[in-house]
Amino acid sequence: MEKIKKIYLAEKDIPHQWYNIQADMPNPMLPPLHPGTLQPIGPEDLAPLFPMELIKQEVSKERWIDIPDEVREVYKIWRPSPLYRAYGLEKLLDSPSKIYYKYEGNSPSGSHKPNTAVPQAYYNKMEGVKKISTETGAGQWGSALSFACQHFGIECEVYMVKISYNQKPYRKLLMNTWGATVIASPSDRTQAGRQILAANPNSNGSLGIAISEAVEVAATSGDSTKYALGSVLNHVLMHQTIIGLEAEKQFEMAGDYPDIVIAPFGGGSNFAGISFPFLRHNFTSGKKTRFIASEPASCPKLTKGQFRYDFGDTIGMTPLLPMFTLGHNFMPAPIHAGGLRYHGAGAIVSQLLKDKFIEAQSFQQIECFEAGVLFAKAEGILPAPEATHGIANVIREVNRAKAAGTSDTILFNLCGHGYFDMSSYQDYFDGKLVDHHFTDDELYANLRELNTPTIPA
Amino acid sequence: MEKIKKIYLAEKDIPHQWYNIQADMPNPMLPPLHPGTLQPIGPEDLAPLFPMELIKQEVSKERWIDIPDEVREVYKIWRPSPLYRAYGLEKLLDSPSKIYYKYEGNSPSGSHKPNTAVPQAYYNKMEGVKKISTETGAGQWGSALSFACQHFGIECEVYMVKISYNQKPYRKLLMNTWGATVIASPSDRTQAGRQILAANPNSNGSLGIAISEAVEVAATSGDSTKYALGSVLNHVLMHQTIIGLEAEKQFEMAGDYPDIVIAPFGGGSNFAGISFPFLRHNFTSGKKTRFIASEPASCPKLTKGQFRYDFGDTIGMTPLLPMFTLGHNFMPAPIHAGGLRYHGAGAIVSQLLKDKFIEAQSFQQIECFEAGVLFAKAEGILPAPEATHGIANVIREVNRAKAAGTSDTILFNLCGHGYFDMSSYQDYFDGKLVDHHFTDDELYANLRELNTPTIPA
Repeated sequence: MEKIKKIYLAEKDIPHQWYNIQADMPNPMLPPLHPGTLQPIGPEDLAPLFPMELIKQEVSKERWIDIPDEVREVYKIWRPSPLYRAYGLEKLLDSPSKIYYKYEGNSPSGSHKPNTAVPQAYYNKMEGVKKISTETGAGQWGSALSFACQHFGIECEVYMVKISYNQKPYRKLLMNTWGATVIASPSDRTQAGRQILAANPNSNGSLGIAISEAVEVAATSGDSTKYALGSVLNHVLMHQTIIGLEAEKQFEMAGDYPDIVIAPFGGGSNFAGISFPFLRHNFTSGKKTRFIASEPASCPKLTKGQFRYDFGDTIGMTPLLPMFTLGHNFMPAPIHAGGLRYHGAGAIVSQLLKDKFIEAQSFQQIECFEAGVLFAKAEGILPAPEATHGIANVIREVNRAKAAGTSDTILFNLCGHGYFDMSSYQDYFDGKLVDHHFTDDELYANLRELNTPTIPA
Repeated sequence: MEKIKKIYLAEKDIPHQWYNIQADMPNPMLPPLHPGTLQPIGPEDLAPLFPMELIKQEVSKERWIDIPDEVREVYKIWRPSPLYRAYGLEKLLDSPSKIYYKYEGNSPSGSHKPNTAVPQAYYNKMEGVKKISTETGAGQWGSALSFACQHFGIECEVYMVKISYNQKPYRKLLMNTWGATVIASPSDRTQAGRQILAANPNSNGSLGIAISEAVEVAATSGDSTKYALGSVLNHVLMHQTIIGLEAEKQFEMAGDYPDIVIAPFGGGSNFAGISFPFLRHNFTSGKKTRFIASEPASCPKLTKGQFRYDFGDTIGMTPLLPMFTLGHNFMPAPIHAGGLRYHGAGAIVSQLLKDKFIEAQSFQQIECFEAGVLFAKAEGILPAPEATHGIANVIREVNRAKAAGTSDTILFNLCGHGYFDMSSYQDYFDGKLVDHHFTDDELYANLRELNTPTIPA
């Protein structure tokens, strides 16, 4: 029998429902709080920002949520995505462990982000929204939403972190090609942006600042303009479960099951997407799979942060979310994996980490780029800088098992390709990358100043 | 029944043989000639440049050539490639015609080129070759061969047309990532390069010059160094038939068959790859499919060139090939589809064009970029500048049929994505692109100076 390198499902096997882990969590996530009253927020608090269907999904306890036919039709442009067996990498690592990866880089914008951009644009369209504002760091989310909005005929306004805006003109151009307006953040178009610029006219921006700007635009523009977020929130994580649900079917076809599931971690949607469908079997059928979130050492909220309430943005416009956080003013070291430079983790993954159902490990960027180049040589695909964190984690786990004389079946999410990130690889090859080691003082300065509610251990 | 957007085959359905059209051509192609004796060349003339297995394939009349298992294993990284129904484009064009496209952009280097790079590297490896030299224009071929050589542990030296070397640093970096050495051509490392630089120190290079350099390296370096070409030659075209053979199976699954097959045309491998498996049914089962090669108006060898013997390179180091040509010194206008800027067409496609089994149409680049942006909006995939020529041709044929009150089933080859060509799209959006209209004098100046054998009409 010939070796199978990758497993494809047919289009009819694209799942018809997303998996909502809120139905199965042993301890439910804590509620978001209104920053003024410190009381749990209700749907009316979110209504200026999101269409009602997404607000319902945000708080739903239903295990399965139907994927609209119109969304599945757009998914068909790139879904189902292939599950690969990494024979090349196994050989290069002389690995007793089996390595599989789910590849999300064949989507129009080259990452997993369209999995949620498409339904978000769809629900907005259904409720009559004419324009969506959003933020983007490296540009993965902004280009995914631009594509989705273009498809459904919605105007899209993207606040792009200024340093990326200047360093990644082609990501901006891709968004323009799909009809979006892209603005360098901080900008003078919002109160939030002007406040930041007044304090620091040379600010390079951050994801937290860009969120503040995009939220302000939606909150102050009337009912026809809403806001969209590319990670962190429950409904976003849920849309990404299509990755893991497909992988589950593909593992059945391979006659295998993962011992370890690994994914890069920014706000949590990539990690949740591939993990939650398997994690449900830990909850419901006694499986013992380990789930490891791979975060950058430059922004180590899961391994070094505190579980408490914090704002999702820099200015403090969002509800208070229960999250592992380094403080909403924390400024991550300037690494090339822009999609992972976010101060906090989504509420669901934070609760799961607190309850020890999932784990986290952190990685310096040079180790990650080394892993990325190794992967390109072994498997032919050049991974996005974000994705290299997962690969570095796989290598670490392979070596750990090998040293212990054991072996595992490992699955990781190769969430995107690196074709738009060649300048980062150039810097790596030119020896221009540095690793950043925070002192405890630097790490915890922002947390010490927070006056938001803490959460008992 | 739900609409099927794309049709995937399983890995086991990757063809086990390539199709060799030389077995079925009504009039065989004319033999290549030795430039000194003007006699047909034999295997010994090609032995310094190519491994014997590829030389055998070059002249074989066998209808089916086995694909080695080792090659099929590497194909599995991205093959079978999907066949898409372009519902989005049909809707945008209000098209009575059905449009399908085969998408080759999911390969490691983002185009169809690895389909031949992998077997070429494999056969070289089997015959003990340690190093392969080659040329590349925009970088598609060079990066494909770098990937393939890396896989089989062969050294790779790429002569890259200087203007692309300077304009496309990321393509160069991709080749470096896969371990290749990349040299700007013309260079001072070869006699050919020094000769060009002596005449014009500021030469931006051309594909013909880069071929001269790469051929010289292989011809003067002993048995352990060979040369590889990314198009034009018979074995290259044959390796690409895997595209059309897969498409044939996919059309069977769709219960459909193409009336028109369209592909961009540089040297012919893209066009041959998708066309020849269907063209064989015109020869053998009375099908009446039309086959249209889409060439740039900046280098119109098929629509304006002459069918005669000419060199494959600029300096005149190769055998004389029977080709539609504009003369081996012809300098195409500087368009962004670098992969199509070649003065001549492969011998097989030239014979087929002469015999009117295939057609050709030419396109200005602004029309092509318009088509590319339209396609990105309709289908979500941003096409390479080369690929946009096929899309412009599809649009022209859709409109022709619509005006005539008829409809067709159209298949085209979407040979690669444009993620490495964003600077070209930037120029398009900035209004910096120009169309170039050659005068007859400019077009035919080089042909008039040729003293190579002509071919009777």
